[in-house]
Amino acid sequence: MSRNLLLISTSTTHGTGYLEHAEEEVKALLEGKSSILFVPYARPGGISNKEYTAKAREAFEKWGIGVTGVHEYDDPVKAVQEAEAVFIGGGNTFLLLRNLYANNLVKPLRERARKGMPYMGTSAGTNVAGKTIGTTNDMPIVHVKTFEALELVPFNINPHYQDPIEGSTHMGETRETRIAEFHNHNRQPVVGLREGSMLRVKGDKIALLGPHSARVFLQTEKPMEFKPGDDINFLLDAY
Amino acid sequence: MSRNLLLISTSTTHGTGYLEHAEEEVKALLEGKSSILFVPYARPGGISNKEYTAKAREAFEKWGIGVTGVHEYDDPVKAVQEAEAVFIGGGNTFLLLRNLYANNLVKPLRERARKGMPYMGTSAGTNVAGKTIGTTNDMPIVHVKTFEALELVPFNINPHYQDPIEGSTHMGETRETRIAEFHNHNRQPVVGLREGSMLRVKGDKIALLGPHSARVFLQTEKPMEFKPGDDINFLLDAY
Repeated sequence: MSRNLLLISTSTTHGTGYLEHAEEEVKALLEGKSSILFVPYARPGGISNKEYTAKAREAFEKWGIGVTGVHEYDDPVKAVQEAEAVFIGGGNTFLLLRNLYANNLVKPLRERARKGMPYMGTSAGTNVAGKTIGTTNDMPIVHVKTFEALELVPFNINPHYQDPIEGSTHMGETRETRIAEFHNHNRQPVVGLREGSMLRVKGDKIALLGPHSARVFLQTEKPMEFKPGDDINFLLDAY
Repeated sequence: MSRNLLLISTSTTHGTGYLEHAEEEVKALLEGKSSILFVPYARPGGISNKEYTAKAREAFEKWGIGVTGVHEYDDPVKAVQEAEAVFIGGGNTFLLLRNLYANNLVKPLRERARKGMPYMGTSAGTNVAGKTIGTTNDMPIVHVKTFEALELVPFNINPHYQDPIEGSTHMGETRETRIAEFHNHNRQPVVGLREGSMLRVKGDKIALLGPHSARVFLQTEKPMEFKPGDDINFLLDAY
């Protein structure tokens, strides 16, 4: 598969501006391109498609990349088919996937991204690049007919991955417990991607970028930590 | 409606044993009853129905109440129809609701609890007593065909409600932001129930119990705080 993906845990890390921490990697992904199609459907905090697209446009225009919002097209399928590159922004993952299905975009996005069109996602947009949205942290604010996602990679991602907070008196499940529960019902690996981390996929190679290690959960093994530079290509194997 | 409900945020508060913090309220709910039917389907941490039922049994037997697990019956519908009282335990809300539908228990549970059979829930079991599971904190580890729940009350509940953590550098959404996003797509009120809090419903009266205030979110108003003793009966009105 000639994939060209950049899967970012969070658009904004603490103390940096929108997409700032990923500037170098975004520029590398979009080398030679002059425009990107933005998918604002996840609507963080309920902002409109228009407002959200304006936010993305502001960031990319600094880098000489033009942005159009997929909602601006009468035919969103055609917009995807003709895009130079696609960026799906964060927000609510259920709402995002529901809107992708409602606009018949799952199949064309999958086809084009698998054939090498540059794809980037942040948070919910990273989640939907995985096999299913079954490891999202988001609230199920709308129902979606299936959790099957774009499956640009054969594993699931948990963005904004958090380690247990030491000394916490909160009794809700830790992230690790939730992922263990997921593995009682699903067999694909899960990559816990901490804020500031990114996965860069080129063809059949995958690399962890950013300042942190990532926590990888396999169904029948203890959780493992991988540092940037470690070989994690096994994640792209069929399981 | 002759409801008799005890909706508990969490089974276990920090530093107390299983159901210990709710002992007095559980005993009041079950006055005059000698047995309770336990629904272990939410399977916290993936424990088996049998193990989970043993845990509940240990707690209730101290109080002179016998426990059977709904999975022990060949006919779970009949078990619900004949139960003196029902307790749905916490765990994963998606898994719980999926199992309730798979075993055709949604309708009989709704009917009996609306007619006065004592019902108690903790965490996921409190979640499913609301209108939908759209405000669960859980991971969607299994798909469920609808988010519509038992609707023993006409609002949604967010158990383990957490206030924003001061000084946090985490960029994931706060609970309040998530609930605001929910209200872009749903109109029922949401009650944020902090750990240690309970809702006691008798007929058309509802009271907040426990040491904390509760945060109430209406679709078109700013969030409100209500203390134990405050009149919150408006939550039972049609909206």
